[in-house]
Amino acid sequence: MRNDQRENNQLRPITIIPNYITHPEGSVLITVGNTKVICNASIEDRVPPFMRGQGKGWITAEYSMLPRATEQRNIRESSKGKVSGRTMEIQRLIGRALRSVVDLDKIGERTIWVDCDVIQADGGTRTASITGAFVAVVLAFGELLKSKSIKQMPVKDYLTATSVGILSDGRAILDLNYEEDSNANVDMNIVMTGSGEFVEIQGTGEEATFSITELQTMLKLASEGLEQIIHIQKEILGELADRIGETAK
Amino acid sequence: MRNDQRENNQLRPITIIPNYITHPEGSVLITVGNTKVICNASIEDRVPPFMRGQGKGWITAEYSMLPRATEQRNIRESSKGKVSGRTMEIQRLIGRALRSVVDLDKIGERTIWVDCDVIQADGGTRTASITGAFVAVVLAFGELLKSKSIKQMPVKDYLTATSVGILSDGRAILDLNYEEDSNANVDMNIVMTGSGEFVEIQGTGEEATFSITELQTMLKLASEGLEQIIHIQKEILGELADRIGETAK
Amino acid sequence: MRNDQRENNQLRPITIIPNYITHPEGSVLITVGNTKVICNASIEDRVPPFMRGQGKGWITAEYSMLPRATEQRNIRESSKGKVSGRTMEIQRLIGRALRSVVDLDKIGERTIWVDCDVIQADGGTRTASITGAFVAVVLAFGELLKSKSIKQMPVKDYLTATSVGILSDGRAILDLNYEEDSNANVDMNIVMTGSGEFVEIQGTGEEATFSITELQTMLKLASEGLEQIIHIQKEILGELADRIGETAK
Amino acid sequence: MRNDQRENNQLRPITIIPNYITHPEGSVLITVGNTKVICNASIEDRVPPFMRGQGKGWITAEYSMLPRATEQRNIRESSKGKVSGRTMEIQRLIGRALRSVVDLDKIGERTIWVDCDVIQADGGTRTASITGAFVAVVLAFGELLKSKSIKQMPVKDYLTATSVGILSDGRAILDLNYEEDSNANVDMNIVMTGSGEFVEIQGTGEEATFSITELQTMLKLASEGLEQIIHIQKEILGELADRIGETAK
Amino acid sequence: MRNDQRENNQLRPITIIPNYITHPEGSVLITVGNTKVICNASIEDRVPPFMRGQGKGWITAEYSMLPRATEQRNIRESSKGKVSGRTMEIQRLIGRALRSVVDLDKIGERTIWVDCDVIQADGGTRTASITGAFVAVVLAFGELLKSKSIKQMPVKDYLTATSVGILSDGRAILDLNYEEDSNANVDMNIVMTGSGEFVEIQGTGEEATFSITELQTMLKLASEGLEQIIHIQKEILGELADRIGETAK
Amino acid sequence: MRNDQRENNQLRPITIIPNYITHPEGSVLITVGNTKVICNASIEDRVPPFMRGQGKGWITAEYSMLPRATEQRNIRESSKGKVSGRTMEIQRLIGRALRSVVDLDKIGERTIWVDCDVIQADGGTRTASITGAFVAVVLAFGELLKSKSIKQMPVKDYLTATSVGILSDGRAILDLNYEEDSNANVDMNIVMTGSGEFVEIQGTGEEATFSITELQTMLKLASEGLEQIIHIQKEILGELADRIGETAK
Repeated sequence: MRNDQRENNQLRPITIIPNYITHPEGSVLITVGNTKVICNASIEDRVPPFMRGQGKGWITAEYSMLPRATEQRNIRESSKGKVSGRTMEIQRLIGRALRSVVDLDKIGERTIWVDCDVIQADGGTRTASITGAFVAVVLAFGELLKSKSIKQMPVKDYLTATSVGILSDGRAILDLNYEEDSNANVDMNIVMTGSGEFVEIQGTGEEATFSITELQTMLKLASEGLEQIIHIQKEILGELADRIGETAK
Repeated sequence: MRNDQRENNQLRPITIIPNYITHPEGSVLITVGNTKVICNASIEDRVPPFMRGQGKGWITAEYSMLPRATEQRNIRESSKGKVSGRTMEIQRLIGRALRSVVDLDKIGERTIWVDCDVIQADGGTRTASITGAFVAVVLAFGELLKSKSIKQMPVKDYLTATSVGILSDGRAILDLNYEEDSNANVDMNIVMTGSGEFVEIQGTGEEATFSITELQTMLKLASEGLEQIIHIQKEILGELADRIGETAK
Repeated sequence: MRNDQRENNQLRPITIIPNYITHPEGSVLITVGNTKVICNASIEDRVPPFMRGQGKGWITAEYSMLPRATEQRNIRESSKGKVSGRTMEIQRLIGRALRSVVDLDKIGERTIWVDCDVIQADGGTRTASITGAFVAVVLAFGELLKSKSIKQMPVKDYLTATSVGILSDGRAILDLNYEEDSNANVDMNIVMTGSGEFVEIQGTGEEATFSITELQTMLKLASEGLEQIIHIQKEILGELADRIGETAK
Repeated sequence: MRNDQRENNQLRPITIIPNYITHPEGSVLITVGNTKVICNASIEDRVPPFMRGQGKGWITAEYSMLPRATEQRNIRESSKGKVSGRTMEIQRLIGRALRSVVDLDKIGERTIWVDCDVIQADGGTRTASITGAFVAVVLAFGELLKSKSIKQMPVKDYLTATSVGILSDGRAILDLNYEEDSNANVDMNIVMTGSGEFVEIQGTGEEATFSITELQTMLKLASEGLEQIIHIQKEILGELADRIGETAK
Repeated sequence: MRNDQRENNQLRPITIIPNYITHPEGSVLITVGNTKVICNASIEDRVPPFMRGQGKGWITAEYSMLPRATEQRNIRESSKGKVSGRTMEIQRLIGRALRSVVDLDKIGERTIWVDCDVIQADGGTRTASITGAFVAVVLAFGELLKSKSIKQMPVKDYLTATSVGILSDGRAILDLNYEEDSNANVDMNIVMTGSGEFVEIQGTGEEATFSITELQTMLKLASEGLEQIIHIQKEILGELADRIGETAK
Repeated sequence: MRNDQRENNQLRPITIIPNYITHPEGSVLITVGNTKVICNASIEDRVPPFMRGQGKGWITAEYSMLPRATEQRNIRESSKGKVSGRTMEIQRLIGRALRSVVDLDKIGERTIWVDCDVIQADGGTRTASITGAFVAVVLAFGELLKSKSIKQMPVKDYLTATSVGILSDGRAILDLNYEEDSNANVDMNIVMTGSGEFVEIQGTGEEATFSITELQTMLKLASEGLEQIIHIQKEILGELADRIGETAK
């Protein structure tokens, strides 16, 4: 059994509270085990300079942790005056993943700013951010639909993410918590669509390596877990869920 | 009547959820109307270099807003690479205020890091931060008492804060929300102790001025409001409330 | 008697040398005891982006100390690559105070840059800066009047500032020098207009508190002191003094 | 045929010039098609603070491009005052990959600084950097062996990297040049050891997705290419090649 | 004899490889003894804001060293987040020198970005940079001539640079290597044109001084050395060499 | 005649007010025509890390201008968050020059911080800074002598600086003011000792060149001017003047 009594292929409990913060066009609080992330999607009616005049939109993401989201307090990046490499890597990943399922040609010259702020961390903050941010973005587009600023839901498919890994005893496990993550030989983040296609695979053997067989096992574990998460996203989205993919019809 | 149906001398509803985040020694979510602030108090077992070897402790505070805590999204200070003047002013105020009611000689060479992170803003974020941070700090000292790291509650008195102001029609009001604050001629933040002493008074007539009579009216409004807030703090603190001031006995 | 033989309600000697530096439209060297500040007011024929097209002007202030203005040499903020919280607090205060007595609608789309550079410090540098900057700003507007760029003196009233405090022995004193400031329980900066209205009150009990009675005493001391300073400002301004307030007539 | 007349499974010509720069303990110029990277490995006789006293070493990497390594000139990161997210991602990847094949316990409290400076870029700069840096690091350890500072070659296995991708017409290709990379639907970087284990897999469908079948095809292409690169590394290393893996014997 | 067997008035061997990097309009690798600098000249079809609308061009230079160009590894300026005073001094010198021999009125509203990146350092990196950058700039203008973007070679005269110095034993020497430079009492960099006029003289007695006689000796040594370098530049430039100075005819 | 009625070989009026600021160990206000610089020398009882344990001292200089020292207001370097290349060049020059006439072995492990703050600028600010800083440093050493912290005046010789230049009409002139400097073809700064040795020569033909004959003329003009300035320094230093050079006796 795992350190929190889960089966190897078992996700932690996930809840998504929609409309969590008042001001953003889309907002959720996602909880995955003890990891909690506020995901806000803000719509700005213009695009960055390098995209102007093309008639299409852009999605960009920012990620941050409260200083005491973790066991040890971290120094704020605003105090240090610079964003860490880890933060940059994560926010680039979130933005890229969201852009892969949104039809940017259908949202006009708008920027969707996605802010993922981790208020409590216990592993898997980047995958929880993607899973929650997807819902926040759909909610934000829901507002644009409601105000008739756009005509179709520009989201082509579901987007969801989780982690898998190999422990030092060789077990492959799904959805690692912080303690597991710290002790794993291999850590892999998988981002997938509702139709089972990969958006991003990032597998790392930090001071270790892994075989093709282990890779296959991890990919299978991830696929099964991600299917379950999509059900949760669907439930939260209600009527908006039915409109996902409508631009392709 | 005010824009949210309150009387001039009426506070907004206040709730304080203790132990909101798992990792910090003290943690609360304070809600004042639509303003929501996570206040975390972290204990570090050393003091900054300029204080080493004196056998006493230090309290320092940091304040931040999520980018979309406000009506318009703000650029993150970590992205800009520097902390704004407004943020610095606020975090210096919070730290100074907390230090005024804590007996730093009684906490050993420890630093209390207070993080006030506004997740939703509707005016009065700095005063809500002080009110909430006070509770978080007492909770953190509660942990030190429980582990027998200190023997007495080092908090000398209650600490609470609110705002008062003068609207353009001359009315003095208590606990301004964002819209009121934007339209006020005078804005004053008052920080007080449980025994009714001032810790800090900051009154500003931005592009306006105010008379001594108006000052008196505002001070009176504030005193009455702050008394009510102390009751809420007391209730949340439970048994720890009784130990406040015990170092003076 | 105080450490420099003054009465409790006695100001330090104040001198203001007008037209101290050649290039600025308005320039003074203000000396308050051993505190010396060069206050320069520069007129720029445009406003910051957020104010363009409104037909009104803006006043902004910057404050700095020479590294060896103080007993111990300080590292330059340009070397550290960032402006300290203290500096930001002070320059925001100076700008806000000046804007409260200037009719920004009457100066066209111009920015008045006020630079307060402390060349020697002995307490009260922020209040000396405000008192001196007011004169520099009036002199700068005098230049605009002379060149007929504006028709009326846009300054509505006098502006002057000083500090008051409570020593550890309970005495309330006016215009604290550095040694007094270091030892005071309470330190309060008061900015007032010529008609006796408050522009800003900032009272702080660093690691201490103060009562309403002590507050009243300090406000009274400040009022009396500020009246004397206005006389000095008037004398320096000569003919320009008579034009202050003319937009209200 | 591809835009440079290669077969889909064909690498670009690779050359590695050892001892390219005089001062570093290990140095190569690696050329992969038109991509040229100077890889220098420097040995410092201490480790970063967080590792002191553990008796083991550390490897860290930095990556940079000359401003005109690319078709359009880029602004220097030193002028911008910060390192971009892309650079951080790459240098973290290089360091992590090298650490996975080096026995850090066998190098004493030393830091190996690996500098990968791209002087000409045509796609695949991060994988060329890893392939070249591996050789530079082995050369640097060769110097430590020569001076008898260490007794065994601490490198456990070969390390090499390449890219694979899926073009918009569905073809899977090996070792993408810049033009191919810009037009690919999927881009995947693979880092492998000499024994065919994965060290890192990073597959990204920027604004696109990919299936499990496409993933398998790409992994196979990569494996075949990487085997060829190891032969080139071996030839350059000469006698040092035979000592790789000796700590495991 | 000198530490590398040269006569006092003897230059180190110089080679200049033209078209070293593919992308830039002009590119050379210059080698002076063990000092190696990549000099790239990039043409941008616009000028900095302060020069717009004047119909003339601009030349600006940037200088950098690879971290391990030197005996000891240096921290990257991009990691430190700021450019050092030494770097600034050097890049200002290179830009100024190049501008003195180019007729900026004849190049249209274009900026020539000159990047001098030292890949291996053994003294004289700034003078090697100027000598090499001159060739790169002429090559870049050659491209503009070829594409008929300009009609005449806008370079008025040759530009070349070297160092001279006085050793502690009083000997005046030409073209100091790193070891000589470290031990010299006086170090002087001379930039000259083909017609023997000075562009820049920078003579420094770091913690030492020098007489007018020593100055004369050094100037003579430099003149003789610089004449030889011009021959090398001429040879590399081939047909372009004949067009230098044609705007004056 | 020149734009301010001077002869070509005539200096502007120079005054040096000693002990200008209270706190520094040495302080002067130097006025050269309309250029005014506060030069403060501060003694710190330790040296920078790279010099510890060698038993000798260090001199370092910083240079800055008040924003409105010039005709147009400049943005503060502290606001920009970085020091400009021009500032760095100047402060490196001042420090280097001062170190060349001080016997650093005779001052113990102390750092002399020299701050040159230009409060009004009309050309020649760097040379005025050197001339004034020299006096401030001697005054500071005078304090160390008075307190018997050192036994001998560690200053070996006088140090003084001025500028010379060539106007567009070919005239060589001494001590350029701002307007002359802006129009000069050649600008040269000369730093000399009391015994007529050069410490630093920096001659620049910005977008122009100069001949050996012009160089000779400028050097002669400078020598004559610098002799006059030394007389002014001597007079100000009084008794301390006699002790300069005593370590050599």
